[in-house]
Amino acid sequence: MSFNIPSLDTLVYELTRLPGIGEKTAQRLAFFILKEGGGYSGRLQTALQEMSQHVHACPECFCYTDQEQCRICASSERDQTVICVVEKPSDVIRLESAAIFRGRYHVLQGTIAPLEGIGPSDIRIQELLERLERHPEIREVILALDSDLEGDTTALYLSKLLQPKNIRLSRIAHGVPFGSDIDYVDYRTLGHALQNRVEL
Amino acid sequence: MSFNIPSLDTLVYELTRLPGIGEKTAQRLAFFILKEGGGYSGRLQTALQEMSQHVHACPECFCYTDQEQCRICASSERDQTVICVVEKPSDVIRLESAAIFRGRYHVLQGTIAPLEGIGPSDIRIQELLERLERHPEIREVILALDSDLEGDTTALYLSKLLQPKNIRLSRIAHGVPFGSDIDYVDYRTLGHALQNRVEL
Repeated sequence: MSFNIPSLDTLVYELTRLPGIGEKTAQRLAFFILKEGGGYSGRLQTALQEMSQHVHACPECFCYTDQEQCRICASSERDQTVICVVEKPSDVIRLESAAIFRGRYHVLQGTIAPLEGIGPSDIRIQELLERLERHPEIREVILALDSDLEGDTTALYLSKLLQPKNIRLSRIAHGVPFGSDIDYVDYRTLGHALQNRVEL
Repeated sequence: MSFNIPSLDTLVYELTRLPGIGEKTAQRLAFFILKEGGGYSGRLQTALQEMSQHVHACPECFCYTDQEQCRICASSERDQTVICVVEKPSDVIRLESAAIFRGRYHVLQGTIAPLEGIGPSDIRIQELLERLERHPEIREVILALDSDLEGDTTALYLSKLLQPKNIRLSRIAHGVPFGSDIDYVDYRTLGHALQNRVEL
């Protein structure tokens, strides 16, 4: 049910394509934009246009940048011998906020998800292999993929591809989150935590 | 924490102004728009522009329309003697989907909220009074306002304004929602439902 206003319906339709935005939320957003008036709508349009014009994937790591290379790839202070493989650009932000990793990243821009028809050739795996060829100084690849079905599949696929090469391959530890109550941790996480226990 | 890309940060900032969109969600939306590429971003810009250009408040009821008057005000089939006062345009959609009310609407575009600095002059109350003056055929005003503090305040204010006039004034019934379990209904709703019980 809507007002049958084509231009409003079109915006609502386009907004529902955004992740996590259903029809009712999209309608609420459209009404908010209408209520705020042309000024806000104009700023939003300009911001969208500016971003689409200037921001692109870094040709080295496929994270986003508005420069020739991204800030991390361009920095000479980062360790050139380690690459951390992540699924999406926001994972880079999350890992950077931990301020532990000093190497570079490789953003796959997705994970292998056979149920959704996403195969190894649809994500940046070939580019990772080419990067390893191009940079023989890379000695370690850390997989920081989500611990779900798709993340595990991708990690398995990558480990099979990279094991023959003379590169140290590791995956970030899965275990009990910091500050959490064991009582509330699910059995799979606890299983992982027990298996990967650390000697004191 | 972000990538320090000004155009991306600007879009994220503008998106966080939308209701219910926090910084992390805004970032997720921006990354989605980037991943979809220029085509989607362009369609979104066009949709925003078209909507802001064509859609405006109906001068009669302050609901949205892209015509001179909204569909409901322009229709000669609607009952001209009853006005239903609502807070926002989406309430009109909701009430229309019930397909019971055959009169016209008046959208206040807000409610009296002293804590947020919104007084009676900030919403379309003056316009409602003028409309009642202009159309002496209006014999009933139904208040369909939310049953929260702001809705109650606005209903009280309107009832004091309209009671001296020779107009039937009513408020939609508050009670146990259809199909719900009394066990799960809060005590205020139950109180209302008991007070406003209907003779069988």
